Amino acid sequence: MTNSVDAVTRQMQERIENYQRRFGVLFQDYFKRLRQEFDAPKLSRFTPRSFDLLEDLSLRGGKRQRVAFMYEAARLVTSEPVPGIDEAALSIELLQTHLLVHDDIIDDAPTRRGGTSTYYSYKEEFPEQPQTALGLALLAGDLAAFLSLRVLLEADLPLSLRQALVETQVTAGAATFVGQMYDLERDLPALPTEEMLHEVSDYKASRSSALAPIQLGLLAAGEDVKQFDATLRRYALMFGISGQMCDDYLSLFGDEKVTGKPATADVRDGRRTYAIRAILAAADASERERVESILGRQDASADDIDTIREIARRHGVDQQLRSQMHRYAEEACVEAASWRPRWRDEAVTFFERIPVWGVERTL
Amino acid sequence: MTNSVDAVTRQMQERIENYQRRFGVLFQDYFKRLRQEFDAPKLSRFTPRSFDLLEDLSLRGGKRQRVAFMYEAARLVTSEPVPGIDEAALSIELLQTHLLVHDDIIDDAPTRRGGTSTYYSYKEEFPEQPQTALGLALLAGDLAAFLSLRVLLEADLPLSLRQALVETQVTAGAATFVGQMYDLERDLPALPTEEMLHEVSDYKASRSSALAPIQLGLLAAGEDVKQFDATLRRYALMFGISGQMCDDYLSLFGDEKVTGKPATADVRDGRRTYAIRAILAAADASERERVESILGRQDASADDIDTIREIARRHGVDQQLRSQMHRYAEEACVEAASWRPRWRDEAVTFFERIPVWGVERTL
Repeated sequence: MTNSVDAVTRQMQERIENYQRRFGVLFQDYFKRLRQEFDAPKLSRFTPRSFDLLEDLSLRGGKRQRVAFMYEAARLVTSEPVPGIDEAALSIELLQTHLLVHDDIIDDAPTRRGGTSTYYSYKEEFPEQPQTALGLALLAGDLAAFLSLRVLLEADLPLSLRQALVETQVTAGAATFVGQMYDLERDLPALPTEEMLHEVSDYKASRSSALAPIQLGLLAAGEDVKQFDATLRRYALMFGISGQMCDDYLSLFGDEKVTGKPATADVRDGRRTYAIRAILAAADASERERVESILGRQDASADDIDTIREIARRHGVDQQLRSQMHRYAEEACVEAASWRPRWRDEAVTFFERIPVWGVERTL
Repeated sequence: MTNSVDAVTRQMQERIENYQRRFGVLFQDYFKRLRQEFDAPKLSRFTPRSFDLLEDLSLRGGKRQRVAFMYEAARLVTSEPVPGIDEAALSIELLQTHLLVHDDIIDDAPTRRGGTSTYYSYKEEFPEQPQTALGLALLAGDLAAFLSLRVLLEADLPLSLRQALVETQVTAGAATFVGQMYDLERDLPALPTEEMLHEVSDYKASRSSALAPIQLGLLAAGEDVKQFDATLRRYALMFGISGQMCDDYLSLFGDEKVTGKPATADVRDGRRTYAIRAILAAADASERERVESILGRQDASADDIDTIREIARRHGVDQQLRSQMHRYAEEACVEAASWRPRWRDEAVTFFERIPVWGVERTL
């Protein structure tokens, strides 16, 4: 049993690495072509500079989980190459670039994906003109969003497919924007409900990072996506909650060197993540007061984080979070299992395994 | 002659007012439907609030010149009602709302269209949380952009037309973003060339405010737009330059009560507009030094503006600007005249008259 599981995991890992390589080349070519073809003002140096920064951030993308989801979704239907799938992959990652660029403005975040954020690159270039830096980052993000749609509109595909792909991305984008608003709203009440956090996770992440990629892959492979709307949404939701819990857990309990994000970040920003919420819910009155006194303080230190971690461990919150993220990953797995025998076994297996694998890789 | 011109002008004015009324109702209905139909997180209050602010800014839109351009472009081809034209009008104005919301973040502008800007509305709601205000304004803007595409994607139209409309808007949006970057770039050199200002005007404004509306109207009316690309671009460019010169002129020489924008705004922000550029180009060394010492100063006063105006008038720059905006308006007029006899006379007349009318209304 263990051996065969290992074999499947190895195979899955190989497939993901394969997609990463393939997509890396594709994405580099895309930016090369963009520079040649984009109708930019001749005298402007700011336009090519924005391409540099968008390319830099885009190519830094690590796991390309969205891309793997999309290729595997097409494989649910067929093992043959599917036209339009590469354009859909580019569109997904360009929309992601858009979201990250704007997210780093919203969070005033200096780093992203182990490098300087687009916003801070501009801040470094215009140290005396903060509004110029803000403006350029905002516009570079806007541009990435429209490029993500343009790449689909220009794809050599039947009109109806092209339109379905564009619609999927526009819907995913709009959902993400309201999800991000909701994410800001979440930090206002003292103790957001779990239901609220699930809804945030759904709108902010699941729809653009899991649901849309699966929909795009299925559409490109000729599947009628609407028919499977409910099960795809459930899968994306459960997977998304599990993934968000992993992220929130790692932000607090993880190794900064691995996450590439300081453990103080969420606390300083007063983010009421799954982890923080669970701690506040479990803590007694005096502990809660202690945690609240640290949350949102810009000078929160490593010692403060240790204090919060200690309170968490005292109530078994770290353990509780780990078991919860497992539970949601397993619910996603069960949902994917229901896709047999309608869809191809090897791809169903991928979607079954990846949620739990994601959790296990995290811990 | 004078009488018949007056009659044409009156007729034109009536038609524009007619479009304004018709579109106002349409836009209100759109937002009503949006609230009912948009798939928003159930528990979120921030999403409906963003709709409120987007609606408020959108309905405050004054002249609706873009909308008039689009309806008149369809009338170049036919006097019959054209399917898809209302959705195209909504799309144009939603994209404009997007541009304004983000523009007011870039410029840190408290007011827009005679009311509070979306950014400042959020700032007032979150006086202690500037990043939350920034984030919400940014996301509301993003949302408006995607709504502007969604309204086209959902239109009950033949696929090929729908796709052509979406493509037009995505192209116009992308051009505007690089135009706005270029607009920020323009303010860096001491004396930008006129060519640079024309290119800024083309990308930042002409393409989304003149070219795209005309293209959308023609497309909806079944015209092959690509065939007329060169003449439409020339018209939009000349009209756009003339209009930008009007705006820049009014910002400096106009009545604040009419423009709704303080005369100090461009000067404080150090904007090298057509007006400022012309003054710097005409001024002698000591005057230039004087103007430069005021430009970009946040405490620039009404007296400072008077100083700049005086230098301008001393060199006849105000007169020169007025004659230049007339010249470009007339070039647009000549371009439109070349559309006869291919297109319908009454609509050609509209496009012939409106550039000069725009200038004369300004002065």
